[in-house]
Amino acid sequence: MKIALLGGTGDIAEGLVLRWSKAGHDIYIGSRSDEKAKGIANEYIEKLDELGIESNIQGMPNADAAKEAEVVIISIPPEYAADTVRQIRDSFTDQIVVTPVVSMDRHEDKSFVFNPPPHGSSALEIKEALPDTVKLVSAYHNLPAKELSKIEQELDYDVVICGDDEEAKEVITKLTEDMPNMRVLDAGPLKLSSMIEAITPLIVNLNIKHKQNFSVKFK
Amino acid sequence: MKIALLGGTGDIAEGLVLRWSKAGHDIYIGSRSDEKAKGIANEYIEKLDELGIESNIQGMPNADAAKEAEVVIISIPPEYAADTVRQIRDSFTDQIVVTPVVSMDRHEDKSFVFNPPPHGSSALEIKEALPDTVKLVSAYHNLPAKELSKIEQELDYDVVICGDDEEAKEVITKLTEDMPNMRVLDAGPLKLSSMIEAITPLIVNLNIKHKQNFSVKFK
Repeated sequence: MKIALLGGTGDIAEGLVLRWSKAGHDIYIGSRSDEKAKGIANEYIEKLDELGIESNIQGMPNADAAKEAEVVIISIPPEYAADTVRQIRDSFTDQIVVTPVVSMDRHEDKSFVFNPPPHGSSALEIKEALPDTVKLVSAYHNLPAKELSKIEQELDYDVVICGDDEEAKEVITKLTEDMPNMRVLDAGPLKLSSMIEAITPLIVNLNIKHKQNFSVKFK
Repeated sequence: MKIALLGGTGDIAEGLVLRWSKAGHDIYIGSRSDEKAKGIANEYIEKLDELGIESNIQGMPNADAAKEAEVVIISIPPEYAADTVRQIRDSFTDQIVVTPVVSMDRHEDKSFVFNPPPHGSSALEIKEALPDTVKLVSAYHNLPAKELSKIEQELDYDVVICGDDEEAKEVITKLTEDMPNMRVLDAGPLKLSSMIEAITPLIVNLNIKHKQNFSVKFK
């Protein structure tokens, strides 16, 4: 499939790009700067080349990456995500858009607390910024970036998703299963996203306190 | 230890009573009605007797159960929990109190959504209802009641707790580890409870959709 990663640097973007390239998908790295996007794309191409994996990765401005793709991942920091999407709103028609965005606050005592926008969740804020024709899926909030980027490693994690379009959720389920051995659990409609997003700051706190790199498994 | 379960019927109360009795703890079942509490206590005693396990379980009004115990579990439905605690406030001095309380709403489409009180979490609402000298720990929100009550079965679950008193969290950690093979993960201060509580409606939705009986494991 043609997959765009807007703001395709850092955090979970690297792991997704590497793993989906390995699975044969075409990747469009989006950034505010065309030059930066092309630079990041080249880094990923080289990394895969070193692993003997052929890839089709291109860098371009966010608006173009969104236009080219069938699936668009919003891998943008929470404070910019909705605004960025709103600025390139015209690039969206009927794509599947995935939001892994989570908004959190750090308190004085260093603990992280879930701090959703007034919409109740980042997913609902991003939904408002997008045309109604887009199929929005909330997913990939709780993946450990470091483990994800080690692409020879199989991942025994659960990816909890939600969204209002059943077909879009099926596509994201298949794309997720292209990264062995993750399991997708569909939680229901998009409005449930706040409960999935809230797990992220909890995991961050647990990671700091217990010096771990946790993800979630439901059993 | 002397452990009280206020409103000690249904849900996770049964599993906790049976497992802690097996581990040799003294149990005080509290209820609004003394008669009801004694009836429930007798049921638990008989169940354990059938399994060849000697127990020390007594039924009494909530206020007396709270007074007798070193650890008090608030196993009361969310709509009554804070009020019940407030009504018997004089029974609390320096006990460790555990809140597994989660407040949720069911929407028209049958999905459950986290619906915390204005305090941000049920834990913070209950904290306000208790004297400051009580050590409140938030725990046991996401245990599957049915699995918990099968006391011959070992449980490979994580119990995420939070609270502002380190010693109290240590006591609850030890009590939890008396139920093999649960692991306790301390998330930090009490104000993080909303993120732990929010997992419960998510699990309820997943259970309904996937016909499972999920609990959480961090790995």
